[in-house]
Amino acid sequence: MNEIGIGVIGTGYMGACHAQAMAAVGHVFEPPLRPRLVAVADVDARSAEAARARFDFARATDDWHELVADPDVAVVSITAPNILHKPMALAALAAGKHVWCEKPMALTAADAREMRDAARAAGVTTLVGYNYVRSPALALARKLVEEGELGRITQFRAIFDEDYMGRADFPYGWRVQRKLAGSGVLGDMGSHAINLAHFLVGPIGEVAAGTYTAHAERADEKGRMLPVENEDVIEALVRFETGVVGHIGASRIAFGRKNGLDLELYGTKGGLRFTQERFNELQLFKTAERSDDNGFRTILTGPPHPPFGRFTPGWGHGLGFNDLKVIEAAHLLDAIAGRSRAWPDFEEGARVEAVCDAIETSVTERRWTRVHTT
Amino acid sequence: MNEIGIGVIGTGYMGACHAQAMAAVGHVFEPPLRPRLVAVADVDARSAEAARARFDFARATDDWHELVADPDVAVVSITAPNILHKPMALAALAAGKHVWCEKPMALTAADAREMRDAARAAGVTTLVGYNYVRSPALALARKLVEEGELGRITQFRAIFDEDYMGRADFPYGWRVQRKLAGSGVLGDMGSHAINLAHFLVGPIGEVAAGTYTAHAERADEKGRMLPVENEDVIEALVRFETGVVGHIGASRIAFGRKNGLDLELYGTKGGLRFTQERFNELQLFKTAERSDDNGFRTILTGPPHPPFGRFTPGWGHGLGFNDLKVIEAAHLLDAIAGRSRAWPDFEEGARVEAVCDAIETSVTERRWTRVHTT
Amino acid sequence: MNEIGIGVIGTGYMGACHAQAMAAVGHVFEPPLRPRLVAVADVDARSAEAARARFDFARATDDWHELVADPDVAVVSITAPNILHKPMALAALAAGKHVWCEKPMALTAADAREMRDAARAAGVTTLVGYNYVRSPALALARKLVEEGELGRITQFRAIFDEDYMGRADFPYGWRVQRKLAGSGVLGDMGSHAINLAHFLVGPIGEVAAGTYTAHAERADEKGRMLPVENEDVIEALVRFETGVVGHIGASRIAFGRKNGLDLELYGTKGGLRFTQERFNELQLFKTAERSDDNGFRTILTGPPHPPFGRFTPGWGHGLGFNDLKVIEAAHLLDAIAGRSRAWPDFEEGARVEAVCDAIETSVTERRWTRVHTT
Amino acid sequence: MNEIGIGVIGTGYMGACHAQAMAAVGHVFEPPLRPRLVAVADVDARSAEAARARFDFARATDDWHELVADPDVAVVSITAPNILHKPMALAALAAGKHVWCEKPMALTAADAREMRDAARAAGVTTLVGYNYVRSPALALARKLVEEGELGRITQFRAIFDEDYMGRADFPYGWRVQRKLAGSGVLGDMGSHAINLAHFLVGPIGEVAAGTYTAHAERADEKGRMLPVENEDVIEALVRFETGVVGHIGASRIAFGRKNGLDLELYGTKGGLRFTQERFNELQLFKTAERSDDNGFRTILTGPPHPPFGRFTPGWGHGLGFNDLKVIEAAHLLDAIAGRSRAWPDFEEGARVEAVCDAIETSVTERRWTRVHTT
Repeated sequence: MNEIGIGVIGTGYMGACHAQAMAAVGHVFEPPLRPRLVAVADVDARSAEAARARFDFARATDDWHELVADPDVAVVSITAPNILHKPMALAALAAGKHVWCEKPMALTAADAREMRDAARAAGVTTLVGYNYVRSPALALARKLVEEGELGRITQFRAIFDEDYMGRADFPYGWRVQRKLAGSGVLGDMGSHAINLAHFLVGPIGEVAAGTYTAHAERADEKGRMLPVENEDVIEALVRFETGVVGHIGASRIAFGRKNGLDLELYGTKGGLRFTQERFNELQLFKTAERSDDNGFRTILTGPPHPPFGRFTPGWGHGLGFNDLKVIEAAHLLDAIAGRSRAWPDFEEGARVEAVCDAIETSVTERRWTRVHTT
Repeated sequence: MNEIGIGVIGTGYMGACHAQAMAAVGHVFEPPLRPRLVAVADVDARSAEAARARFDFARATDDWHELVADPDVAVVSITAPNILHKPMALAALAAGKHVWCEKPMALTAADAREMRDAARAAGVTTLVGYNYVRSPALALARKLVEEGELGRITQFRAIFDEDYMGRADFPYGWRVQRKLAGSGVLGDMGSHAINLAHFLVGPIGEVAAGTYTAHAERADEKGRMLPVENEDVIEALVRFETGVVGHIGASRIAFGRKNGLDLELYGTKGGLRFTQERFNELQLFKTAERSDDNGFRTILTGPPHPPFGRFTPGWGHGLGFNDLKVIEAAHLLDAIAGRSRAWPDFEEGARVEAVCDAIETSVTERRWTRVHTT
Repeated sequence: MNEIGIGVIGTGYMGACHAQAMAAVGHVFEPPLRPRLVAVADVDARSAEAARARFDFARATDDWHELVADPDVAVVSITAPNILHKPMALAALAAGKHVWCEKPMALTAADAREMRDAARAAGVTTLVGYNYVRSPALALARKLVEEGELGRITQFRAIFDEDYMGRADFPYGWRVQRKLAGSGVLGDMGSHAINLAHFLVGPIGEVAAGTYTAHAERADEKGRMLPVENEDVIEALVRFETGVVGHIGASRIAFGRKNGLDLELYGTKGGLRFTQERFNELQLFKTAERSDDNGFRTILTGPPHPPFGRFTPGWGHGLGFNDLKVIEAAHLLDAIAGRSRAWPDFEEGARVEAVCDAIETSVTERRWTRVHTT
Repeated sequence: MNEIGIGVIGTGYMGACHAQAMAAVGHVFEPPLRPRLVAVADVDARSAEAARARFDFARATDDWHELVADPDVAVVSITAPNILHKPMALAALAAGKHVWCEKPMALTAADAREMRDAARAAGVTTLVGYNYVRSPALALARKLVEEGELGRITQFRAIFDEDYMGRADFPYGWRVQRKLAGSGVLGDMGSHAINLAHFLVGPIGEVAAGTYTAHAERADEKGRMLPVENEDVIEALVRFETGVVGHIGASRIAFGRKNGLDLELYGTKGGLRFTQERFNELQLFKTAERSDDNGFRTILTGPPHPPFGRFTPGWGHGLGFNDLKVIEAAHLLDAIAGRSRAWPDFEEGARVEAVCDAIETSVTERRWTRVHTT
C-alpha cells in the first residue's frame, strides 16, 4: 500500500482531531493511501513535542514554514487560529501540498477567493473542515434528495445554536474582536448551516439579515469592560437560485443548546428533520397513499447508511464526533488518490465566505443583497 | 348566577367550537356569567337549524343581521369567512355587543384599524381567536418570562408549519385568492406566530421578509389550472423594539407537520422550547451552579399550571385543542364581568395585522420595513 | 331524537367527568340517544346540590338509593369510592338500569364475578371506566393489529407509572388500607395495563409477580406512623393464552412520571410503541423491502383516526383527557341503542380482576399462577 | 512511557474493535502504559495476516496457543466464538497474562466460576466486555446514585431489545443452538441489562422468569427447517438484596429497535431514564420545592461527564460506540498499572452468569429462584 506523509499545524483540539483521524483512518477504512504522521508544528515548541510523542509523529517543530517545506509532507492540515489560515494555505499550495484546512477558511470573502485561486493554480486537493455533512445521516439526506424522494425542494431552514458564550462573564478575547475573528457567530457556526444549505439545496443567490449582540461589553482577565465587536445572534433569510426562500440562524448564547445544528427541509413529496445533537438519527416523512399510518420516521443510522458500516456492523450503535473526522480524512485520501472529488473544497469554502460576506453587507445596507461568487 | 346571551355566526368547525366552548365553560370553570345559547346564524338556513338542534340554541336564522340585532344576544361570535369579519364586527360593535372574532381579524391592516377604532368607541369587550397562547404551557412560558426566570430576552424564533396544501392536487379555491383570503400562509398561520411574539417578547418594530409559492397554479373542480395569488411559504426576520432580532416563518406545504407552531426563546438566564403538536409540554433550560446534571426539562403540564386544574386534577393527563377554546371562553366571560382584561383583543389583533402589512411591504420593497401601528 | 335519563353517583373528579361527558356528547357526536341529566347523588348534600347547579341536573340527593330508584334514570354512573361500587352496581342492575362504573370495578375478583353475573342476569349494558383504550391512537393500534399489519404478535410490555405517592410525607389514608382499597398500585393503575393487554393481545393465562413497598409506614394527619398495607410497586410477568410472554408493571412512586402508561407491542411484521403522556401519538414500525429509510413513525392522530374527526378536523391538534370520557359516553350510548357492543363491560372488568387476583396469589405463593376466569 | 504488549485473538468485529481501541487509546487518553500491538491470532491464517497489516501488529498466527505463549504479549484479548472463551481464558491466566474477554464470559455459570477462580489464583487483571456501563451518561448515572441524588433506590427496569433475528427467514446457525450459544437472547443481550442492574443497584438475590420462542424452526442454508433451541424473548423479575423488585427483559425480534438497552431507575428523591440508542443523553428528574417548572431533564453529555472531555471539549458533540471500547481499554490499562480496579472483571462476569443461570432454572421450575454466587 502506498503511504502519504501528513503534517499538522496546530496542536489544540482540532490539531489533535486531525492527528487522531489520520492515525485511525487506516484501521477503519481501507484507504488507497496510508497516512504516515511526519510532522507536527506549533508556535509553542513544548506543545509541538508533546503532540509528537502522543501521536507518534516523526518530528516536531515550532516553525510551520519548516513543516510546509518538509519534502516528506504531502498533506498539510491547518488547524491554527483562523487569522493564520490564509498565509499557511498559500504557502502550502505554493509548495504543491494538498491542504486540509479548518473552517472558517478565511476571515473575509476576498481572502477566501485568493486562497481558492491559489488552489486552482496549484491543482492539488483541498478540503475545508465542514465535517457535519459527512455524517451517515446527512449523507442519507443528500441521497434521498438526489433520488427525488422528497420531490422538488420547496423549503429549507437551518439553525446552529450553542451556548458557549451565554454567560455574561464569558471573558473578552479574540472571539469578539473583528480583527482576529471577523464576524461572530456567523463565521464560527452560521457557516456550517450555509454549507449544509449548499449540500442539500444548492447555490444561494441572495440574502437578507439582521444581528444582535446581547452582551455589548465583556470583561477581560483584568476585569476591564471592553466592547464586543461582533454579533452573538445572526438571523438571515436566503433565496436559493431556484427561487426557494429559506432561513438560516445562529447563536452562541442559546442556553441549553450544545450542538444545535437543526435542519428542516421540505419538498413536493416529503420532508426531513435533523439535529446534530442526535446526529445518528434522521427524521423522514414520505407522502403515501395510506394516510392513517404515516408520520415522521426516526431513522437510526446503521450499515445501510455508508460509511457507517466501516465503523461497526451494529445498527443504531452510533458514531461519535471524532468519527466524523475519520470519515473526512478517508474522503480526503480518496480524493488525493483520484477516486472521488473532495468536497467542501476551497471552491465551496469560498462560496460559503461569499454568502457570509453578503449577509454582512445586508446587515449594513438593511436590504436583500446579492451573493457575489466571482 | 347571572346569565349572558350568546349568538354565534357561522356553523363550520369554528362555529361549532365556539358553541361547544360556551356550552361547556360553565361545567369546567365557575364563570361570573353563565352563557345562554340564544341564537345561531348561517347563510344556509338548514345548517343554522342543524346547529341550533345540536347545541340547543334558542333560535336559528339565515340572516346574521337579525342575530346581531337580537336584544337577548350580548356576545357575538364571528366565525364566518374572513372577508365578512369586518362588516359583522362593525355591526355588532355598533349594536353595543361584545365580540369574539376568529382570526385573522381582517384582510388588511387598514380594515383591522377601523375595527379596532370601532371597538374603542363602543367600549365593549373584544377578543380575537388566537387561542394557542391560552394553553397552560404557554401561560407558564409567559409567567417564567415575567418572573425573570429567563433573564433579559435575547433571542426569539417561531414557525408555524402545516401541510394541508402540500399536495399539488389540492384544489384551487378561496384560500389562494387575494381578494378573498388576502395573504396566504402569513395571515392564516404566521399571524399566530406574531401574536406569540407579542405575548412573550413585546412589540415588533421592523421586519424583513421573503415568500415562495411552490405551486404557481392549482386546478379548480373542472380541472382548469388557475394562478395562485398568495404565498405557500413566508420567512420573515423581526426586530423587536428592544433591539432583539428574531425569526418568524410559516408554511402550508411542510409535509408531515400537522400543527407545527414551534417556539424557541432565550434569555440571559435560560431558554424555552415548545411545539403546539405537544402543547401539554414545555421545554425549559435554567442556568445553574451545577453543570453536570442540567439540561432542558420536559415540563408536563398539570394542576400547578392554571387553568389546567379546572379540567382535571390529573397531572400529565393532557388537555385537547377544544379545551383551549373553553379557556378562551372563560377568559372572555371574566373580561366582560370586569375581572380581567381580554387579550388578544382588537388592539392586539390590529397590531398583528400591522406586522403582517409591514411584512408584505418588505417583500415588495426588498428591505427592512417599519411596522406602523398608529 | 330519543332522550335517555342519566344519574351520576359521586361528585368528585370522576363524577364531574361523567357529568361533563354526558353534557358534551350530544355536541360532539350524533348519539342515537341524547342524554338528559336527571339526578346527581352525593353523601354530602351540599356537594350534590353544587354539582346539580354546575351541570344542570334536574335534581340532587344525598341518598344514592333514591337515584337508583328514580324512574327517569336509565343509566347509573358509579363514581363513588371503590368499596361502594359493588352494592351500588348490584342495586342498579336489580333495578334494570344500565351501569357505567369507574374502575377498579371491585376490590376482589369474587366481588367482580358477582357483579358480572348480576349484569348477565339483568341483560343491560355495562361499561367499566378503562377509558385509555378509547383514544384514537390506541384504537388505531387495535386496528393495525386486527388488520395484521404487525403480523403474529410475539411480544408485549406495558407499565403504568405515576408519582402521586412518591413523597415520603404523602399522608396515610384509604389508599394504603387493604380493607378500603384492596391492592395498591395494582388495582389502581396496573388494571389499566391489564385491560390494555386484553385489548391488543387477548386473554392472559398465567402470571408471576413480585411487589415492593418503599414506604412501609406513612404518617396520618396527627403525625402517627401507621403501616402501609399494600404495594407501591408491582412487577408481573404474564403468559398469554397464545404462549407469548409479556411484562406488566406499575408504580405510584416513580418520580417524574405523571401519566406513564407506556406500551411496547411487537409482531412478526412490525412494532408499536406508545405512552399515555403523549396519547395523541402512536409510534409504528413496519418492516419493508427498503431498509435505509425505515424507522419508527411518529403518527400524529387526526381525522383518519376515528373518532378524532368528531372533535376537530385539525390533524395533530390534539384531544384531551376529558375528551376520552366523551368518547366513552358516546360508546356507551351506541351500545345501549344496540349499535355496538360495550367494552370493557362487566365481563371484561371481571377478567381484569381475575388477573389481579392471580397476581396477588403469585406474590404469596412465589410461583407462576393460573388465572381463574370462571 | 512504559509499553505493554497486546495480543488479540479473533479478527471479527470485536477483534477489530479491540485492536482499534488499543491503537487509539494512547492518542485519546494519557494511559500509564502505552499499548504495543504485538500479535493477532485467527484460526484462518489469511484473516490473521490481513488484521496484522490493517492494525500494524508485529506478527500474526493461526494458533492462539502461540499468541498466549508469546513472551511479548502481556494482555490477551479474547474475541473468538463464545464457546472458546473458557479454554482461551484459562490458558492465558495460566500463563500469567491479563485478560480482556468479550461477553458473555462463558456458556454456563459453572464455567464462569471456574474462570473466575483461575483469575483469583493468577492475581492478574481481568475485564469482561460489558462496555455500555463505561459511557459518560451511565457513569453520571452511577455518580448520581452514589451521591444520593436519587435518594434510596426503589425501582429498576432494564430491557435490551434488538431486531437482528426478527425476520422469519433469518437463517439457522450457531446462535440458536444450545451447545454453541447456550441461552438465546438472555446471554447475548440480557446479560448487559443484568450487569447494568449490578452497576446501578447492586446484587440480585432472586429471579422469576419466562421465555418465548416466536420462530420455533428456522431454515438452514439448504432450506431445511431445524428446531430453534433457545429463546427469542426473555422476561424476568429480579429481587435485589435490598428487597427492591425490578424487571429485566430482552428480545432479538423487536422490530425497529436497534440498540434498545433502555433503563428506568427511581429512588425516594428522583428518577433516571436512559436508552442506549441515545447514549449521549441521560434523562434525570429531581424532586424540588418548586413544582411548576420541573420535569425530566435531557442531559447532553460533555466535558463535565468524564471521560467525555478526553475525546472532545465540544459539549453535546457525541461519542460513538467505538469510543466506548477506547474508554474500556483505558480503564483496563489503568487497572493493570494499579491506578484503579477493573470492573466488570471475572468476579462480576461470574455473577452475571449466576443470575442467568438462576433465570434459566426459574423458567424450568416456574417459581422464584435464588441466585447462587458461591
